Amino acid sequence: MAAPARNPDAPASPTVKKDAHEWSRAALEGVLAKRFFYNQAFEIYGGVAGLYDYGPTGAALQANIIAAWRNHFILEEEMLELDTTIMTLSDVLKTSGHVDKFADFMCKDLKNGEIFRADHLVEGVLEARLKGDEQAREAEAGTTSKPKEEVAAEGSEDKKTAKKKKIKSAAVKLDDAVKAEYESVLAQIDNYTGAELGQLIKKFAIKSPETGNELSEPVEFNLMFETQIGPTGYVKGYLRPETAQGHFVNFARLLDFNNGRVPFASAHIGKSFRNEISPRAGLLRVREFVMAEIEHYVDPLDKNHERFDEVKQVKLPFLPKGIQQSGKTDITTTTIGEAVASGMVDNQTLGYFLARIYLFLQKIGIDTQRVRFRQHMANEMAHYASDCWDAEIKTSYGWVECVGCADRSAYDLTVHSKRTHKELHVQVPLKEPKVYDKLIPELNRKALGPKFKKEAKAVEEAIVEMDQDALGSLQSQLQNGSAKVKVGSQEYEITPDLVKVELKVVKETVRTYTPNVIEPSFGIGRIFYSLLEHSFWAREEDADRGVLSLPPLVAPFKALIVPISNSKELAPLVKQVSRKLRSAGVAARVDDSSATIGRRYARNDELGTPFACTLDFASLSKGTMTLRERDTTSQLIGPIDEVISVIRTLCDGEIDWQGAQKRLPAYSGQQALD
Amino acid sequence: MAAPARNPDAPASPTVKKDAHEWSRAALEGVLAKRFFYNQAFEIYGGVAGLYDYGPTGAALQANIIAAWRNHFILEEEMLELDTTIMTLSDVLKTSGHVDKFADFMCKDLKNGEIFRADHLVEGVLEARLKGDEQAREAEAGTTSKPKEEVAAEGSEDKKTAKKKKIKSAAVKLDDAVKAEYESVLAQIDNYTGAELGQLIKKFAIKSPETGNELSEPVEFNLMFETQIGPTGYVKGYLRPETAQGHFVNFARLLDFNNGRVPFASAHIGKSFRNEISPRAGLLRVREFVMAEIEHYVDPLDKNHERFDEVKQVKLPFLPKGIQQSGKTDITTTTIGEAVASGMVDNQTLGYFLARIYLFLQKIGIDTQRVRFRQHMANEMAHYASDCWDAEIKTSYGWVECVGCADRSAYDLTVHSKRTHKELHVQVPLKEPKVYDKLIPELNRKALGPKFKKEAKAVEEAIVEMDQDALGSLQSQLQNGSAKVKVGSQEYEITPDLVKVELKVVKETVRTYTPNVIEPSFGIGRIFYSLLEHSFWAREEDADRGVLSLPPLVAPFKALIVPISNSKELAPLVKQVSRKLRSAGVAARVDDSSATIGRRYARNDELGTPFACTLDFASLSKGTMTLRERDTTSQLIGPIDEVISVIRTLCDGEIDWQGAQKRLPAYSGQQALD
Repeated sequence: MAAPARNPDAPASPTVKKDAHEWSRAALEGVLAKRFFYNQAFEIYGGVAGLYDYGPTGAALQANIIAAWRNHFILEEEMLELDTTIMTLSDVLKTSGHVDKFADFMCKDLKNGEIFRADHLVEGVLEARLKGDEQAREAEAGTTSKPKEEVAAEGSEDKKTAKKKKIKSAAVKLDDAVKAEYESVLAQIDNYTGAELGQLIKKFAIKSPETGNELSEPVEFNLMFETQIGPTGYVKGYLRPETAQGHFVNFARLLDFNNGRVPFASAHIGKSFRNEISPRAGLLRVREFVMAEIEHYVDPLDKNHERFDEVKQVKLPFLPKGIQQSGKTDITTTTIGEAVASGMVDNQTLGYFLARIYLFLQKIGIDTQRVRFRQHMANEMAHYASDCWDAEIKTSYGWVECVGCADRSAYDLTVHSKRTHKELHVQVPLKEPKVYDKLIPELNRKALGPKFKKEAKAVEEAIVEMDQDALGSLQSQLQNGSAKVKVGSQEYEITPDLVKVELKVVKETVRTYTPNVIEPSFGIGRIFYSLLEHSFWAREEDADRGVLSLPPLVAPFKALIVPISNSKELAPLVKQVSRKLRSAGVAARVDDSSATIGRRYARNDELGTPFACTLDFASLSKGTMTLRERDTTSQLIGPIDEVISVIRTLCDGEIDWQGAQKRLPAYSGQQALD
Repeated sequence: MAAPARNPDAPASPTVKKDAHEWSRAALEGVLAKRFFYNQAFEIYGGVAGLYDYGPTGAALQANIIAAWRNHFILEEEMLELDTTIMTLSDVLKTSGHVDKFADFMCKDLKNGEIFRADHLVEGVLEARLKGDEQAREAEAGTTSKPKEEVAAEGSEDKKTAKKKKIKSAAVKLDDAVKAEYESVLAQIDNYTGAELGQLIKKFAIKSPETGNELSEPVEFNLMFETQIGPTGYVKGYLRPETAQGHFVNFARLLDFNNGRVPFASAHIGKSFRNEISPRAGLLRVREFVMAEIEHYVDPLDKNHERFDEVKQVKLPFLPKGIQQSGKTDITTTTIGEAVASGMVDNQTLGYFLARIYLFLQKIGIDTQRVRFRQHMANEMAHYASDCWDAEIKTSYGWVECVGCADRSAYDLTVHSKRTHKELHVQVPLKEPKVYDKLIPELNRKALGPKFKKEAKAVEEAIVEMDQDALGSLQSQLQNGSAKVKVGSQEYEITPDLVKVELKVVKETVRTYTPNVIEPSFGIGRIFYSLLEHSFWAREEDADRGVLSLPPLVAPFKALIVPISNSKELAPLVKQVSRKLRSAGVAARVDDSSATIGRRYARNDELGTPFACTLDFASLSKGTMTLRERDTTSQLIGPIDEVISVIRTLCDGEIDWQGAQKRLPAYSGQQALD
């Protein structure tokens, strides 16, 4: 089938960083705060852990990432976009399993009541001990010890104490066997149950880090925010922890909208909420976040993907579950075609999305050298999932799960259908009708009602839901006079006057099935933060001159307009250029402050704006404008309209800076400006 | 100042409706459900009142309205966009007044516990009585009585009973004076306090509509959803009831981002929540909704707007407060320039936004004949607001408040600053330094501390916050030996060793002020629904053939691609046209179902898709494609690429259908198709 070629416009990583200063998270955080990408919400009230507000730059960057996502996924694949409610009826999340199972384990300092997330506590303490071991070994060997580093771990929860606490490492050497055991535990830290975490805490004598007090056993804490809908107090609601359930409860309408055909996908971009026990690591673990989720519905008998061939040559870095279970983290790089053929990735549709996720991350500027696809291990994965891979991105906090891609099988649609008695399935006409014998129960409802009264309905349902084996057994028991039917823990006696089971010839003309669901689920905030880390560097000549090399596709503003002075003569021209750029669809900002040109360029580099147009008195006399590129600081010059046309073409990704250099001459005058 | 001319591309209302069938809300609702614009959330679970999910058409229409809003306001005025958290710290909403005052009054059926929103109950009962009076008068006069209508009023709250209840009208004639009194109460129904509503319920002997039981006194119910942040239970949170507070708590960072300059505006598009007592009227009164809010910060001494001249000739329909208080609803139409000059609208900035709101509504397709600007009456308006106008849109539910535009004065920034002791103000250098005498208190903190212990800080604050009059009085009391300082209800005795008050010469070089805030606040869901009502009609020849005449700017899909048959020969061409439209930035959908062309066009009309491209065998042999316009059903024909170019130009608003008719010849073949 003639399918469109993939857009090859993924930006290369900036190439001018090789001389940059050593990367520093503190420097990045300084720039992000100063340029108002984001900051802690309710900062003037002391802030609340895990809640962040995005300022003008951050909001624009986020909006651009979302727009790129919408183009790359929704428009490209004609997905059906939804906007469902955040407020979710408790029944829905009871059915999905979230009310019972969406929880983390926490333990309490038994004396001061401080609360820790159990897995993070174990992780933090063991990491600190390994660090101490390293220091002790270095000291023993006489090598220079690096300055003591502290390992981030759990702070307690509320806003007064939510600042990240560090667990201090002491230079204590560990036995080789202990060290190996710690390392093995850390490699599987996401893989433990609450009881197992409790055992680890005992085994490794882990105490409350600051006080040394004993800790409680880990107990479950449900991560959903709960509230009441309406004034009666009868209707309980939760803030959704994912958008997925909003897709599933609308499945019947979506299928109808798609003329009854499968495969198709629904997509939803919106906020979700998790009441984290102890948020940490900035935007990486928060209580309110933007998700972009796709639910792709497929026939369980055919999980091939129509467009798989378009991506099968894409090479991806895999970390399969077997490797992790052996305590290692080695990467296997292979094409997605081979990964599916070998069975490492379960099916083509899952594989197609892994490749598309990789291409998306590349397109928005993530350094793909710092991306891997990690497969979930047994205990991590929901019991119904048949396979699950996380796209992880490496940041200064380590590897971060940014996109989950799971095969949720038919689980969700099945449980909602069962709970609501609504049909959430697909019907396809069979090419050949299927004719076969089938045991069918016939209920004498007039007799069942009076006999079992309130229980009658449950007994009837139990019989109707029996499979052929159970019906065969029921039939033979009834032939012997009576049968027992179990409902929950109760047994009911059934006699032949109440139920008959007969073998009948059945002719099926349609096949009915519950679709399986492949779910790529994106944490936009985590991708946003990782992108900022991957984009940030400082100029060789000055560690204080930070640069955010964001690609034009997602940069908050595409062009800066800089009048060389705030002379009144230049003002009308500044307005005119601003208006022309806006008409060309280029988001531009004017900086007509009194700072020097150099300072304004530096500010602009921190905002991640790829291009700057400088207007000077030659602009008035000759109608020219210079064009500066952020990463190289090189400049071109040309007539104003031509420069605007070049910027538009650069922003659309039709040309790169080399292409721009072919269209406009280099600017060599007044080099001192920069 | 050279400012860009206003974009004159507002679409005209469809002109072909004159022969349309009588408008019917039931027909519209049928189309909206069938084409999955939206439906009640958790429908398969029985639904929850006041919560709605948007399907693929609704989500796209909403996204397009939001995109138009972002262009019209944020980009046009270079506003600073924010994305702040929905989860809000309770302290913030305590300061803003929402914890104490954001409430509606409800009363309870004293026997069955059913809950009613008090103002809606009074409204519903009086409307029903007036209806009954009308019927009785008609019967008396012998004129034919219309079929009995029922008046919508309040249902009780939870999901089982949330279906709208009707209050039955009985044909009972009222005294002329009573009738006039009811009408006057209804004209001011938004204007009553809880106690006044209680008096009306007693005076008019209003009972629980279905049972006739007595009702409780109206009590306040806070409309915010409450929850706990974190596992400790110490931090209370609310879902924001508006985005505004998220702007205000970030004001200092926003001002800094804007280089300290005022005026400027911040803007935020996002969800807000109100736990309505009894949601009704579909999308018009819901518990979760998208808002788009602008907070425009101005110098309180200069509320002129730089671009006011661009809009001053725009004529707007006004309903000022004086007219309403006299019980009338007559509209005054005048230019915004005159409205501001006459003082009816308080200032230029408020006036500028009223005009811009009107132009926005016109641009997205709202019928401006059904728009009015209603000024708030005294009791409706927050005590701090100096003026407030609502843009109301007329729908089948009556006039609906869709945009509020208030001057919030300096209230919010002042209360947050006071509560947090953070400076939320603007400093501007004075041209001439101001030199004057000022009484200044000098505190002897070393003595105050031991003397007042825990209270010392409060006493010091009380003195520091004194105005010049209070300081004068303090000074003279101290000269007489001692003074009393009041803190809350306590008085403290101050002696001259503790505090001195002296007259000093002060030189001020900067002026410090708290900006005032003009706030245009848009309910996107209400605008969305009103637009659907204004766009819907049925073709003359068939009441079942509904059409949604949405302008191309906001239509969910811009073009439909229809292969004349689902022959395999046409499939590659369908893919190619689909890809070409996507590249041209035109959101298109293929309908290759087996329905007849006519049925597919009809379906398309209900989706509001303005253009349809039909591919037939001539497309294969001659490379042509026909182009159908939704409202007129007229068709043009041309080479595929030329037709695509015309569609792109139509969608960009550069030409209208008349312009398209100049570029492509009319299609006259196979007229039977449509």
